[in-house]
Amino acid sequence: MRRKRLTSEEYLSGILAGDRLILSRAITLVESNLESDQEIADQVLNGCIQTSQSAYKIAISGVPGVGKSTFIEGFGIYLIEQGHQVAVLSIDPSSTISKGSILGDKTRMEQLSTHPQAFVRPSPTLGALGGVSDKTREVSILCAAAGFDRILIETVGVGQSEVKVKQMVDFFLLLMLPNAGDELQGIKRGIIEIADSIVINKSDGELKVLAQQAKASYSRALHFFAANESKWTPQIMTCSALNKQGFDEIYQVLSQFQKITMENGYWMKNREKQNISWMEEAITHYLLWDFQKDPRVKNKKEQLSQKMIDHQISPRYAARKLMEIWRNPSTD
Amino acid sequence: MRRKRLTSEEYLSGILAGDRLILSRAITLVESNLESDQEIADQVLNGCIQTSQSAYKIAISGVPGVGKSTFIEGFGIYLIEQGHQVAVLSIDPSSTISKGSILGDKTRMEQLSTHPQAFVRPSPTLGALGGVSDKTREVSILCAAAGFDRILIETVGVGQSEVKVKQMVDFFLLLMLPNAGDELQGIKRGIIEIADSIVINKSDGELKVLAQQAKASYSRALHFFAANESKWTPQIMTCSALNKQGFDEIYQVLSQFQKITMENGYWMKNREKQNISWMEEAITHYLLWDFQKDPRVKNKKEQLSQKMIDHQISPRYAARKLMEIWRNPSTD
Repeated sequence: MRRKRLTSEEYLSGILAGDRLILSRAITLVESNLESDQEIADQVLNGCIQTSQSAYKIAISGVPGVGKSTFIEGFGIYLIEQGHQVAVLSIDPSSTISKGSILGDKTRMEQLSTHPQAFVRPSPTLGALGGVSDKTREVSILCAAAGFDRILIETVGVGQSEVKVKQMVDFFLLLMLPNAGDELQGIKRGIIEIADSIVINKSDGELKVLAQQAKASYSRALHFFAANESKWTPQIMTCSALNKQGFDEIYQVLSQFQKITMENGYWMKNREKQNISWMEEAITHYLLWDFQKDPRVKNKKEQLSQKMIDHQISPRYAARKLMEIWRNPSTD
Repeated sequence: MRRKRLTSEEYLSGILAGDRLILSRAITLVESNLESDQEIADQVLNGCIQTSQSAYKIAISGVPGVGKSTFIEGFGIYLIEQGHQVAVLSIDPSSTISKGSILGDKTRMEQLSTHPQAFVRPSPTLGALGGVSDKTREVSILCAAAGFDRILIETVGVGQSEVKVKQMVDFFLLLMLPNAGDELQGIKRGIIEIADSIVINKSDGELKVLAQQAKASYSRALHFFAANESKWTPQIMTCSALNKQGFDEIYQVLSQFQKITMENGYWMKNREKQNISWMEEAITHYLLWDFQKDPRVKNKKEQLSQKMIDHQISPRYAARKLMEIWRNPSTD
């Protein structure tokens, strides 16, 4: 049996009432690339924007093995105990690396995913890549409007995705390992720079001493970074997600960040900037889409690419020629 | 007295004959953003492409203070002694940080800049930013066609520019300091990952021991990186640019890289990929340019931005509305 199509009003009232079934359907709607879904998706999103403002969006990043799932499970429950409602989303740009986690979202966070105050959104299916991360912002707006006031966005620490995620959250939390050689986790990704704070996880048992050393070492490291626009000093903390230790401090740091940056104006400014760049990214995407699907451009591009490979023309010339066709379809 | 405008044939024959005066004028031509210069600039570039292929383009990167100028001066002379002709270009995305170096290009490299086998191109003037780096590829084509077979592209290590430079060179050489805390040079920039080799400079006097330690430490660090497409294993070397020591090894590593990657096909494949992305960047640039200068788009964008700030609409909706206007000028 096919489900009846909802109107934008039905979507909206359902979301704002916290109806999970309708929230899920709305997520599917905004994730859709069908032209016929865009208009209604826009209406639903516009209707959610205002209400969604009060949610705090937090990126949880770190290399595979750092314990992101355990952390999110534990800290998510902690947040609920503080009276929050928690949504968990994932950004996963690389199908191959993290196939496991995609399939296992629900089982990974057993307690959280079945908790009435939580909403764990399984990662989009494989194959929907590329479009995936573009929709995370939309999905977080819907979740926020549905009453989830803490949105945890999990990202696999493989470099490129971090910069993208940074542009859609209020706070970027980087999880790291206490073990030796772990300075390199940061080197590899270059993301220490964008972290608003670092948590050294697995600070339990024998690793506790190493975690303290790592904390000291990262604290020194942070001296090398210029003060950022937010005037916030990133904090280095330790935690044992396994033993549910260290959550208090993390929670306080998150609150402090919000308080300080709301007072100095950065919080709002950052969100406005994020919205502008979101709009601009979308425009670039649409412009390239239109351009690339033009059959005359496509055809000419193949010819010119061959000439480029044969070293007869420069890429700049090829670009200008393609633009000529695009701007004026009557010439060739 | 105004100089006579050269024809594209005059430019070409002058460049291919190695005439420096004409080379300089051709550089000014391709750096020009005047619409009337584009056609002839294209012709000149197309005429240079084939000949330019034999040049080896090498990025020299590193944080301020690492000794890039001294290195380029010393290694440039070394290259000339090996029978090469050397061109030095700079990429400088940030006017404020490196004002000093921009003003001092010629005096920084005293020996090299007056050498008959070298061509040191002073950085473009302040204020021409944004467009600057886009032209470095063009300028390197002209220099290569004029007979400069080793093109050193100096880049100030401030992060963003490195990825751009990586896309226009055959080899990316990262200079680092031997001093303590320098693991962080890499962390900060996240560019160790893109370096084809690392040279620890200032390996002289008291720093020599530290340089050896740093070398060992970076060598270990490199184990963490996945093998890249080039099948090349980045080398860690030490050098004293001041005492002109270590150049032999660097020269050999550069030759090895060329030999290995030419044999396994990466050298050409990389250049083809660079050309494709150059073309695509240029297209994106032109498309956005056309879009943004449309007065109806501009006008609507202001309205929509305000609505976005007031949380009435989502950025995605704003983008779609602007695209509607752009695609069909008769609606509003």
